[in-house]
Amino acid sequence: MRTLKITLAYDGTNYVGWQRQAEGTSIQGLLEEAIARIEGHEVTVIGAGRTDAGVHALAQVASVRVSSTHECEVYVRALNATLPADIRVRQVEPEPDDFHARYGARRKTYHYRVLHAPVGSPFESRYAWHVTWPLDLDAMRAALAQCVGQHDFAAFQGSGSDVRETVRTIEEATVSVAAGSLGAEILLFSLTGDGFLRHMVRNIVGTVIDIGRGRWGTEELGRMLASRDRTQAGPTAPPQGLFLVCVGYQ
Amino acid sequence: MRTLKITLAYDGTNYVGWQRQAEGTSIQGLLEEAIARIEGHEVTVIGAGRTDAGVHALAQVASVRVSSTHECEVYVRALNATLPADIRVRQVEPEPDDFHARYGARRKTYHYRVLHAPVGSPFESRYAWHVTWPLDLDAMRAALAQCVGQHDFAAFQGSGSDVRETVRTIEEATVSVAAGSLGAEILLFSLTGDGFLRHMVRNIVGTVIDIGRGRWGTEELGRMLASRDRTQAGPTAPPQGLFLVCVGYQ
Repeated sequence: MRTLKITLAYDGTNYVGWQRQAEGTSIQGLLEEAIARIEGHEVTVIGAGRTDAGVHALAQVASVRVSSTHECEVYVRALNATLPADIRVRQVEPEPDDFHARYGARRKTYHYRVLHAPVGSPFESRYAWHVTWPLDLDAMRAALAQCVGQHDFAAFQGSGSDVRETVRTIEEATVSVAAGSLGAEILLFSLTGDGFLRHMVRNIVGTVIDIGRGRWGTEELGRMLASRDRTQAGPTAPPQGLFLVCVGYQ
Repeated sequence: MRTLKITLAYDGTNYVGWQRQAEGTSIQGLLEEAIARIEGHEVTVIGAGRTDAGVHALAQVASVRVSSTHECEVYVRALNATLPADIRVRQVEPEPDDFHARYGARRKTYHYRVLHAPVGSPFESRYAWHVTWPLDLDAMRAALAQCVGQHDFAAFQGSGSDVRETVRTIEEATVSVAAGSLGAEILLFSLTGDGFLRHMVRNIVGTVIDIGRGRWGTEELGRMLASRDRTQAGPTAPPQGLFLVCVGYQ
């Protein structure tokens, strides 16, 4: 047996999320089936981050123990031949036996895309949150800056989560203007940290957008953080704007 | 009654094409239903170009005669409230009574996107033709240059078309390298002309890609054109890479 690291991109629109569930098609489930077809036996794949339904990945990382001895390139081709077009294996690499995609992850970057335009775009409806309110970019930047550093993010954790340790360190939290399709403006949020709680990026973005449209003052984000109370923070931004962009290991 | 010009963008993936058909959902059909809901009576919408199933538009133009007197902005909002998210009305403008989206069109620009990469992208599978062959960009440019000018494009017309006049003038035919998602290369074909026959852009792109991969010499495209024989030209590129980008009127 040996351990492989699989880097994959997917469009999460048609899936119940990364994780295998009782109902519906998951990315983990399809990847496990595709690997099992090569291996001739069942396998369990571990993902770095459990992306929710509708959330995308440019470079999710998965680890798996396999018994076959194919070249990594053969895995890439064979998996892509079986998987649907909205899931693509980008790279397969050999790793030491103790490599674990989830526990080994030291740093993750998520992007969140907001289409800021009067009219939506057919080419962004699966990949961005369409927002029409006037937004104060400076206020949003100042709010985001309050996330940076080590904080207890309990107020920004999705309800129903079973994670007990809610302290995380955010290295960087920025928002910049990028060109979207049809000449529209995309607000690109980028958050890098040592880990993220369930719905944490979407709750931060939902709150920052509320601050940008003037529902709350800039300093409210710091107060929400300090409260450690989910009911104090803003709404959850919808899933389709979120992308897992990068997972770093030591 | 007055005449409106409607500019709309759509993702053609889920439709049988622009034109209403006996089976399946068309963009024309949905737009007619949405306008009829405002008008209280049936309407007929005329499109500048009949995009095929899976083909997209950044700015398709449609004309329609209406009896209601709403402001144009009201039409934009009301139509977008009814239409699915993959069809968006970008603009509604009043026009003289004789405005006809199809007969009045003097110039059209189409883009065709080719994802040139070893592995496909989940975010390009609906919007680009994935090509893995090595391609000679200079040969492709030289081939495209032979399309420019006034020619009889009968050899590049889709079979089964009933158009008799097959002479068209291409003003510009280029291919450039652009950045796609995941750092992959997109080959962006851009063709501007006074009109295009059915499948003409896709047949030109399919032939140029064949020349790029060395199946034919560069000069073959001119010979195919001169033959006026569809069986002489190359294959039809798949629909999902094609975008109607712009329609010009006098």
